[in-house]
Amino acid sequence: MSNSPIDPVKLDKLGEVAIKVGLQLAEGQDLIITAPMTSAPLVRRITEHAYKAGAGVVTTIYSDEEATLSRFRHARDASFDRAAGWLYQGMAEAYRNNAARLAISGDNPMMLANEDPDKVSRANRANSAAYRPALELITGFDINWNIVSYPTPNWAKLVFPNDPEDVAIAKLADAIFKASRVDRDDPIAEWKQHNANLKARWTWLNGKKFASLKYKGPGTDLSVGLADGHRWKGGASEAKNGVTCNPNIPTEEVFTTPHRLRVEGTVSATKPLSHNGTLIENIQARFEDGRMVELKASKGQEVFNKVLDTDEGARRLGEVALVPHSSPISASGILFYNTLYDENASCHIAMGQCYADCFEDGKTLTQDQIFAQGGNKSLIHIDWMIGSDQVDIDGVHADGSSEPVKRKGEWAFSV
Amino acid sequence: MSNSPIDPVKLDKLGEVAIKVGLQLAEGQDLIITAPMTSAPLVRRITEHAYKAGAGVVTTIYSDEEATLSRFRHARDASFDRAAGWLYQGMAEAYRNNAARLAISGDNPMMLANEDPDKVSRANRANSAAYRPALELITGFDINWNIVSYPTPNWAKLVFPNDPEDVAIAKLADAIFKASRVDRDDPIAEWKQHNANLKARWTWLNGKKFASLKYKGPGTDLSVGLADGHRWKGGASEAKNGVTCNPNIPTEEVFTTPHRLRVEGTVSATKPLSHNGTLIENIQARFEDGRMVELKASKGQEVFNKVLDTDEGARRLGEVALVPHSSPISASGILFYNTLYDENASCHIAMGQCYADCFEDGKTLTQDQIFAQGGNKSLIHIDWMIGSDQVDIDGVHADGSSEPVKRKGEWAFSV
Repeated sequence: MSNSPIDPVKLDKLGEVAIKVGLQLAEGQDLIITAPMTSAPLVRRITEHAYKAGAGVVTTIYSDEEATLSRFRHARDASFDRAAGWLYQGMAEAYRNNAARLAISGDNPMMLANEDPDKVSRANRANSAAYRPALELITGFDINWNIVSYPTPNWAKLVFPNDPEDVAIAKLADAIFKASRVDRDDPIAEWKQHNANLKARWTWLNGKKFASLKYKGPGTDLSVGLADGHRWKGGASEAKNGVTCNPNIPTEEVFTTPHRLRVEGTVSATKPLSHNGTLIENIQARFEDGRMVELKASKGQEVFNKVLDTDEGARRLGEVALVPHSSPISASGILFYNTLYDENASCHIAMGQCYADCFEDGKTLTQDQIFAQGGNKSLIHIDWMIGSDQVDIDGVHADGSSEPVKRKGEWAFSV
Repeated sequence: MSNSPIDPVKLDKLGEVAIKVGLQLAEGQDLIITAPMTSAPLVRRITEHAYKAGAGVVTTIYSDEEATLSRFRHARDASFDRAAGWLYQGMAEAYRNNAARLAISGDNPMMLANEDPDKVSRANRANSAAYRPALELITGFDINWNIVSYPTPNWAKLVFPNDPEDVAIAKLADAIFKASRVDRDDPIAEWKQHNANLKARWTWLNGKKFASLKYKGPGTDLSVGLADGHRWKGGASEAKNGVTCNPNIPTEEVFTTPHRLRVEGTVSATKPLSHNGTLIENIQARFEDGRMVELKASKGQEVFNKVLDTDEGARRLGEVALVPHSSPISASGILFYNTLYDENASCHIAMGQCYADCFEDGKTLTQDQIFAQGGNKSLIHIDWMIGSDQVDIDGVHADGSSEPVKRKGEWAFSV
């Protein structure tokens, strides 16, 4: 550990921010961490900060790239329709008993790039179905949760392919520390200020009650209707268990729920999408009545199409998010091949499941009410990037009048 | 990995033996592995052999010594009465759905040696209670299961304290490979022969239907009554799911269920007992009516006493096992500080829970019937070693007549 290329002081600060800003872990709460094995140094810092904050029991479920690949290379065909349902059911039970949840993102984004797309898709689908009860408790904000990243070797080598491994890891670590605001003297104060800035943006947007957003840019002419009674959010968020958490570290977005039947037009991705080990590049799509009716991609089209065949809701939108083009992650100029980062470099939309919490009274609405107001449901939730400094966005009122929300990728209103 | 002191060919054979001999994993069975993080190289070999054998989904739950210690050093007092019940409940559910179970033993035996005994005891008790439903499915042989070992650095350094780490790991690896019979050309054939030898021993013992065993040696004058309808077992064992497995790799013992009310006299341990990170040395105990009424130990007495306070059954016996003093593990002369090894170097007894399977018709007996026949019940099951080349054992019939079972630690009958 002593000769790791990762700054141990900043790593410890990242662990502290994950617990004190990300989760705001409450006294006595149990904690479930999911993490790649190669992120163990961060898991250990998080575990210590969790116990210092009064955690009950911290349990880490590690994934291992080699074990995952072993399955794709050696398992019988029938394996790919199975999942560890017992584990996900257990997690859901823990969340129902108020355990908090922390995910460390850092898996090799290209892990499954050379595996059979059919097996990848079936394994993902089986996993999504088994995970759904637990995921609904997370996306529904029953409990406080957080995702934070760690610069694993295989991820670092993908992002910085021309550097030796140690240099690549150090560079990715620095980018993560900067984006996560732990390179500052007082990261916790920085996050307080950042949350206030995001809140000013979504407060303005909520006041406008736009009926739709209109996107114009190269290859993009898209209208995204917003769900009835939608609510914009961003940064800190109060979960139903009364704890205010910051689900994503880093985060630069404000976001809400689109109407699953009211999306029309064409849209072009502005960055590649890395999904479960496959890179999907140069996506171009056309929507009619909310449904994606055409899809092209220069790479990974087959995998993306299979994912979008998961269920009826998979070709409809579940999230729309606004990010300034000048955000620190965008300004870094790095393509991270990791949604947590790349989505925060650009305005984006997500296919699939919507967030129940992005509605007025979202905490008390039933699934049926959410659906009736235009919320989408699906086993998947996949963000892809459609913003750049060449994309303008207008907010359109119910009477057809409109006003600028973004110009050349930047906020077009002051708060 | 390339400069590991552990022979990769033998490690792979150990993984193969764990799946093909230890578990005899059936086509389509899911598999749950529990393992220290530092044993990942063996987990990966096992995972590959499992998928090659037709495993459904293999899920590994890793433990991490640093995270465990972090809890003891930083958690609030209330943490030590909690456990990850959700995880154990999930495992039990998986076993009810016929998942197989493989544990890798290799944790640092002294991990908790310097922690507060009260916290250690409370944490163990909370864990045992939460784990009980899953453990009963294992000890009741509802499913095929196996324990196998890996030479982790901290364990190796404890066993070979005067060697550099790499040398210690290589030595412990060799000892594990030899005891697990993977240093031979055809380990699977070796295990078939070994199972046949063990079967000949327990077949003879079952034919005798002894009422009790009488132990005589230095500091030992003990009578251990056997449960009514007890059955001797050893080596391969058929689980209720129809799969024949070898639960322990290595194993040298034949064993059965003592009567929890019929143990009388004094007994001295012949090796130290390593229990959940505490070493308990020079145990001397006296039993009356099956209950341990006196306990002395030169080291670890407080921890052992606390464990034995777990419940009513913790001071009574749940297992009695016979091992030849000349067994390969005993012949190695190594003190492993690990029950899986040390128990197979010596005759031993276990405090606590009995094995339901060590009865005639054990597969169909209810818990109440087992109890009525003298079987013990407890949250704990802790083996300790009472055999040596100075201990003789007689089998005593119901009419008081007796015949030699062991002399100077060796089998005293031919088969």
